[in-house]
Amino acid sequence: MTDNKSPEQASNSEKPWGGRFTEPTDAFVERFTASVGFDQRLYHHDITGSIAHATMLAAVGVLTNEERDTILEGLKAVKADIEAGTFQWSVSLEDVHMNIEARLTDRIGVTGKKLHTGRSRNDQVATDIRLYLRDEIDVIAEELKRLQAGLLNLAEREADTIMPGFTHLQTAQPVTFGHHLLAWYEMLVRDGERLQDCRKRVNVMPLGAAALAGTTYPIDRAMTAKLLGFDRASENSLDSVSDRDFAIEFCSFAALLMTHLSRFSEELVLWTCAQFDFIDLPDRFCTGSSIMPQKKNPDVPELVRGKTGRVNGHLISLLTLMKGQPLAYNKDNQEDKEPLFDTVDTVKGCLRAYADMVPAITAKADNMRVAAKRGFSTATDLADYLVKKGMPFRDAHEVVGRSVAFGVEQKRDLSDMTLAELQSFSGIISEDVFDVLTLEGSVQARDHLGGTAPTQVRAAVKRARNALKQG
Amino acid sequence: MTDNKSPEQASNSEKPWGGRFTEPTDAFVERFTASVGFDQRLYHHDITGSIAHATMLAAVGVLTNEERDTILEGLKAVKADIEAGTFQWSVSLEDVHMNIEARLTDRIGVTGKKLHTGRSRNDQVATDIRLYLRDEIDVIAEELKRLQAGLLNLAEREADTIMPGFTHLQTAQPVTFGHHLLAWYEMLVRDGERLQDCRKRVNVMPLGAAALAGTTYPIDRAMTAKLLGFDRASENSLDSVSDRDFAIEFCSFAALLMTHLSRFSEELVLWTCAQFDFIDLPDRFCTGSSIMPQKKNPDVPELVRGKTGRVNGHLISLLTLMKGQPLAYNKDNQEDKEPLFDTVDTVKGCLRAYADMVPAITAKADNMRVAAKRGFSTATDLADYLVKKGMPFRDAHEVVGRSVAFGVEQKRDLSDMTLAELQSFSGIISEDVFDVLTLEGSVQARDHLGGTAPTQVRAAVKRARNALKQG
Amino acid sequence: MTDNKSPEQASNSEKPWGGRFTEPTDAFVERFTASVGFDQRLYHHDITGSIAHATMLAAVGVLTNEERDTILEGLKAVKADIEAGTFQWSVSLEDVHMNIEARLTDRIGVTGKKLHTGRSRNDQVATDIRLYLRDEIDVIAEELKRLQAGLLNLAEREADTIMPGFTHLQTAQPVTFGHHLLAWYEMLVRDGERLQDCRKRVNVMPLGAAALAGTTYPIDRAMTAKLLGFDRASENSLDSVSDRDFAIEFCSFAALLMTHLSRFSEELVLWTCAQFDFIDLPDRFCTGSSIMPQKKNPDVPELVRGKTGRVNGHLISLLTLMKGQPLAYNKDNQEDKEPLFDTVDTVKGCLRAYADMVPAITAKADNMRVAAKRGFSTATDLADYLVKKGMPFRDAHEVVGRSVAFGVEQKRDLSDMTLAELQSFSGIISEDVFDVLTLEGSVQARDHLGGTAPTQVRAAVKRARNALKQG
Amino acid sequence: MTDNKSPEQASNSEKPWGGRFTEPTDAFVERFTASVGFDQRLYHHDITGSIAHATMLAAVGVLTNEERDTILEGLKAVKADIEAGTFQWSVSLEDVHMNIEARLTDRIGVTGKKLHTGRSRNDQVATDIRLYLRDEIDVIAEELKRLQAGLLNLAEREADTIMPGFTHLQTAQPVTFGHHLLAWYEMLVRDGERLQDCRKRVNVMPLGAAALAGTTYPIDRAMTAKLLGFDRASENSLDSVSDRDFAIEFCSFAALLMTHLSRFSEELVLWTCAQFDFIDLPDRFCTGSSIMPQKKNPDVPELVRGKTGRVNGHLISLLTLMKGQPLAYNKDNQEDKEPLFDTVDTVKGCLRAYADMVPAITAKADNMRVAAKRGFSTATDLADYLVKKGMPFRDAHEVVGRSVAFGVEQKRDLSDMTLAELQSFSGIISEDVFDVLTLEGSVQARDHLGGTAPTQVRAAVKRARNALKQG
Repeated sequence: MTDNKSPEQASNSEKPWGGRFTEPTDAFVERFTASVGFDQRLYHHDITGSIAHATMLAAVGVLTNEERDTILEGLKAVKADIEAGTFQWSVSLEDVHMNIEARLTDRIGVTGKKLHTGRSRNDQVATDIRLYLRDEIDVIAEELKRLQAGLLNLAEREADTIMPGFTHLQTAQPVTFGHHLLAWYEMLVRDGERLQDCRKRVNVMPLGAAALAGTTYPIDRAMTAKLLGFDRASENSLDSVSDRDFAIEFCSFAALLMTHLSRFSEELVLWTCAQFDFIDLPDRFCTGSSIMPQKKNPDVPELVRGKTGRVNGHLISLLTLMKGQPLAYNKDNQEDKEPLFDTVDTVKGCLRAYADMVPAITAKADNMRVAAKRGFSTATDLADYLVKKGMPFRDAHEVVGRSVAFGVEQKRDLSDMTLAELQSFSGIISEDVFDVLTLEGSVQARDHLGGTAPTQVRAAVKRARNALKQG
Repeated sequence: MTDNKSPEQASNSEKPWGGRFTEPTDAFVERFTASVGFDQRLYHHDITGSIAHATMLAAVGVLTNEERDTILEGLKAVKADIEAGTFQWSVSLEDVHMNIEARLTDRIGVTGKKLHTGRSRNDQVATDIRLYLRDEIDVIAEELKRLQAGLLNLAEREADTIMPGFTHLQTAQPVTFGHHLLAWYEMLVRDGERLQDCRKRVNVMPLGAAALAGTTYPIDRAMTAKLLGFDRASENSLDSVSDRDFAIEFCSFAALLMTHLSRFSEELVLWTCAQFDFIDLPDRFCTGSSIMPQKKNPDVPELVRGKTGRVNGHLISLLTLMKGQPLAYNKDNQEDKEPLFDTVDTVKGCLRAYADMVPAITAKADNMRVAAKRGFSTATDLADYLVKKGMPFRDAHEVVGRSVAFGVEQKRDLSDMTLAELQSFSGIISEDVFDVLTLEGSVQARDHLGGTAPTQVRAAVKRARNALKQG
Repeated sequence: MTDNKSPEQASNSEKPWGGRFTEPTDAFVERFTASVGFDQRLYHHDITGSIAHATMLAAVGVLTNEERDTILEGLKAVKADIEAGTFQWSVSLEDVHMNIEARLTDRIGVTGKKLHTGRSRNDQVATDIRLYLRDEIDVIAEELKRLQAGLLNLAEREADTIMPGFTHLQTAQPVTFGHHLLAWYEMLVRDGERLQDCRKRVNVMPLGAAALAGTTYPIDRAMTAKLLGFDRASENSLDSVSDRDFAIEFCSFAALLMTHLSRFSEELVLWTCAQFDFIDLPDRFCTGSSIMPQKKNPDVPELVRGKTGRVNGHLISLLTLMKGQPLAYNKDNQEDKEPLFDTVDTVKGCLRAYADMVPAITAKADNMRVAAKRGFSTATDLADYLVKKGMPFRDAHEVVGRSVAFGVEQKRDLSDMTLAELQSFSGIISEDVFDVLTLEGSVQARDHLGGTAPTQVRAAVKRARNALKQG
Repeated sequence: MTDNKSPEQASNSEKPWGGRFTEPTDAFVERFTASVGFDQRLYHHDITGSIAHATMLAAVGVLTNEERDTILEGLKAVKADIEAGTFQWSVSLEDVHMNIEARLTDRIGVTGKKLHTGRSRNDQVATDIRLYLRDEIDVIAEELKRLQAGLLNLAEREADTIMPGFTHLQTAQPVTFGHHLLAWYEMLVRDGERLQDCRKRVNVMPLGAAALAGTTYPIDRAMTAKLLGFDRASENSLDSVSDRDFAIEFCSFAALLMTHLSRFSEELVLWTCAQFDFIDLPDRFCTGSSIMPQKKNPDVPELVRGKTGRVNGHLISLLTLMKGQPLAYNKDNQEDKEPLFDTVDTVKGCLRAYADMVPAITAKADNMRVAAKRGFSTATDLADYLVKKGMPFRDAHEVVGRSVAFGVEQKRDLSDMTLAELQSFSGIISEDVFDVLTLEGSVQARDHLGGTAPTQVRAAVKRARNALKQG
């Protein structure tokens, strides 16, 4: 609902559809049903679409070239007004389309009334949103790449830094910090793919569907599509005016991206807490407390994590909106815009904050290393050692399990036990066991595609950089 | 995210927590993390809370009476500034709380710095939202009652109007239109109960929890609670600053209310379509088409139906927000406000539109009646007739099923068959069968609590009116 | 969708509604639309409802006492068959209701066909679910209390144990572990209230609404309601058969409860990780790894946290289901059961696991204490100290902020600084400052309702125990 | 949660990780945390994955060829047991993986314990689900095509059938029924594209990631990927074990598909109701009522519409599950399976029902035609007529609006007015106006790509058939 106030009761004579009506719209209903409070954001794409439409109408003879030129000039002047802040948006005129058209007619007179020939607000708004979203997708794709590039640089820098790898938030095995960061990178690779897959389906032109059935004018939809940079005109007019799949698919993309950013955030929050203390975030990405003078809070990650719900909510909002709607356009669809706009804003803001922040992360390698040594992180290496000496894996697992139980009781890591102690669990253990119980030995041994060995991390960064350049 | 621009890089010296920090906040981060763009809506309740807090601090001796008076006067002046539109909100000051406090100190000097004694923004914002929501709940409760009263009047007026009752959108049995409207009324009764149940849990005061652990000052929480009209002070400080149950519960209430309104809307849309044509909505609640001159669209019901998804989305947004948050306050919680505010606005707008529109609904009784006669709507009455003549219900059902199959084939209703034809399905049918096959006979026969008989409808309206008065 | 296979093409003659149909149901459609695969869970309540219905029918003269007795005996025999596992559920008979009725008629002959007099599956199933849910609510209420009691015992035991209180997962102020546990308790108090509020709206009887409009038989709904323990009969028949608010409200309750349990879980997972190491969970609530022999994973909290999404999903599922449905019953509603059943199971399982596990939590008080001393947790106490010496709070905050910055640089806590060092930040600091910088001093000073002081914790436990007994 | 009961307290000695533990798992916890109740569905893909893994291990020398053959033979025997129904699933063994491995070792002795070398359940389960989902996607793609082909046939058959096109469920303009059906077809085209886009990201192999960091054995991941038909091995081990994007993306696809099917359903329900009566559904896709003998309910569309919420719920469930999870695998992820499995089942069932039902839809062309003539459906044609005579569109709209208002008052359609009457609204109207006011004239005039003209419908069917063949 918009908060815009209409200073006086609107007269229906101003409405583009007043002819059939016998009483004016209720003043509250007018505000309640108006969309101009939020859809004015589309003014740029609305005018772009109108310019292409008028150009095509002239090309097929529905407008004269003179009329076309008058309209184009008028539209540009209206756009200039809007950008200069001198445009008065009117709630009585309901939406961005009618506000612009009314102003156009004010400016250029009767010719302005010809612009709407062969189209309807139904196909017009569908076109506007697609143009808008296509542009925003391209902005988002760039921000995504900037974040990815930042991650690759950091991963390369930290290719040798050893930290504990966790499962169940319990120390599992040592990994390299660079490897961990590349896991984040991979999530974003998929997001980038999904975004481009979505873009294909956004970039289809509904204009020409008119209200729902097409139009009786000899329009050239291929021409308009080309003028607007669309890949093609849509196939079915009823579908064109009612389809909001592209908005839902974009929100699905966004929900997954936010899920990934929320996972990064969870880890950054953990890593900056006193108990982990694995990294430092610069002061400029943090804020303090109005009461506790010592606080330095990781606001950006927390806020990004919190914004995940927002985008999930918008996705549900749009799915619920479309559920069970009969063809073709229904007023319900007006509710598609705010969730989409807010999703775009949220995604852009979060990506920008992350792309700025990630390069500024400082690893506290010493703290990571100390943590990696705790929690029997090389226990799997000991089991693998036994297997290589001929013990079946399940039996080796059992042997190591017992030695860990002993270590828990004694509060000592495996690498701190004597050879004799280790041998008390299995006679096939010999002096060379201590090589596999080091952190470096552990990570270097995982030396295959996707493994945590520093050489693999560097190779992965290289491959990723090439892909990012070409992507 | 707010779109507010900070004209220049904020200096941290302005921040309430700058002491510990070595570099200023990043300009984008400042905007990204600021909440003043949306939480300024809370200014009134923030000042109300501060007045009570200062009053209590003076009562327990933490402030002098003079300091209290200076603060109270200052706060009132700040409020006047805001309401006069002369207050400059600053993104650097992050939120409504710090904006107001900073302006207070500008106005009254050093005493202003004493206001925040014994509290934190964590308990302050929790208090503000509860005060805000309590007020909005009371407004919503009134709008709900207004809509309920409108439904009762309409139901009474249409207590005798017969329409087809549907299951599976197939004609089932005749019902009275008044009875149908009372079904809507019952849904709202439950909404009203849930709203009051929620209010109980909203009206508990978190102030005094300070940042998370309480405060070292000798505060009197019972006094502050009383000054602010809270039922009681909260029991646990950690819970107090992190609890957002009340916002989620309110959105749960709202999601169910909107589900009900969307069901009403679905029916209004059906009833106004040419195929049903059961009712008329006045022009002032409808809009037209920019291309199809004959259209009169039921915009209000459609839009309300569409807004259901919006509220469901906000509910999910808040549930997702809180999922897995450790105690106590996390920055994520800043994301609680916009979904809540928009839910409040949506509910108020939709209720207002419905409360205005419902009394203006006109029933087209003739069309309803014609429809009720179609579709063998009195088939159950025939079955009941057979049962009363001694046939087991399942056998009667079978007999009527066969007679309907015959009617479908012959395109004739049961009441249009001859006695001989009816008797061909069962010999126990006699002349009196035609009484039960009339619409009036059918509805009057359902004469028990909750049944569709006009007398029951009138009795139900009476009971409901009494309950509404007392509620 | 059920996976039940129908061994042979069903004949419609078996169906309770075959009379009007000219071809048998498609075999796949029969399976696709059948609900008996999941609604057989309701058999007990279905039979209970039928017994009450038959008893009432006899009381009002629709059945003879002999017929009633035959039916009651038959129903009990059917129930015994089901519980003995000898009942053959048939997909052709669609649902639990028709399966039981068909078997009843097999057993007792033509009298069985009279049971369905004056009711419909629409009001029958609504009654069954309410009976079922009421029973499950009572079970859940008991498990909830068991968990609450366990928390109170643990809180009392740990009333003096000091741990760091966190905001933003950064060390904020010292709190007592008992106080932290009582924050969990408070969340459950609200859950318990919401559950009872929901129960009021569950415990209303729809029976008598019949298909949608009531029935022509002289039924006594008050009698049936009393027999079944319902608070009252419902007010409107159309509403009665279509209302699923109670299921949605229950899922809203459950989503909030699960949100709370997921918050507890997040903390338990953190506290058992090597970096925090604040508590021990007994081995019997943990599992290990098939590859890493040292792992002891907090499976129960993790799984409970994961199950939150499941319940949120069911809530959305039900809200989406009802959105925009016209009155009265639609087949869509068959989809209400599985989400509700799974929500009930999930909530019961999670509560049971937590009620068993909580008393077995062991605090590692030494680790908590060491952590509480880190991170300048008494900085607020220093600020309060300065305020009490006369400095305005905002200035005190600034002074402490600078001393913390110094401590960060020097890697020393406030309590480790010399008096001279502290005085370099403010001359009003004197020797007595060291009292407020201790952990004990800090927690004891927060001695008001809701504060973290051990005496407050003990008092809160006492109040809560009384409330729990009376609740 | 599984309901399986473990008859006796499980001994941890049976567990694959018992070594480190000092007490057996709690009996309830064992059931609560076990997944074998639902993940046994993966047995086929689990064994397929194990066969490939063992084959690779032998190729790189970790197993001897003899050991490999023993294992392969054993696995096939286990599979045969499962398919014969003689396999005893054990809750103590937690999941499908350990059940199969334990049985393998029972069968073939110590060699069975070597199978798990170089992998973990973390990468094993991720591989199993991907193999499973890939197969199901291929099944779903086929069902989708079958439904699409059915729609094309029906659209072709009904290319000339005229029905009212609706916006806001108000009569808008005449369209052809074939054109309407092609709108449905277009939605499914996008679903098919999204499904294939998703499949690309499903078909990547996580095996080799082991627990989280890769393995110390010289594994050949490219070989295993090839054996299993994966496009490639995954890039990062931490990501591989924690990634559930593919499941979420599949559910996003499914939610949109279900949204489309729910829209078809809404229309089928409308079209079969007595007020529309536009089509007939065969009895075999409908069911009746236990109380109202005349009912023939469109159960299949209603149930499909209802199942939309179910899939939306599962999508939210999975998004919530992953939100904020730190790397790498957490037990929470066990909750990924049931929502995914149920989504697959739901989608397959709904598509099958629709693909069976759509070819059996019968259009009632006469009823459609009568409806199309009502509601001034050719008003836009009149406006276009005026524009072609030189009037600006906005003025033409106004003229027609007034003539419609006159028609509403007179209860006459535009085509029923006299020339004089029409001319009273605009003098430029002449005798040829009546050509454009016919239904045929209206639909034939919309003769451009995407328009509703019968020739366009036929051309669109032809294009679509070619695309479907090649797709």
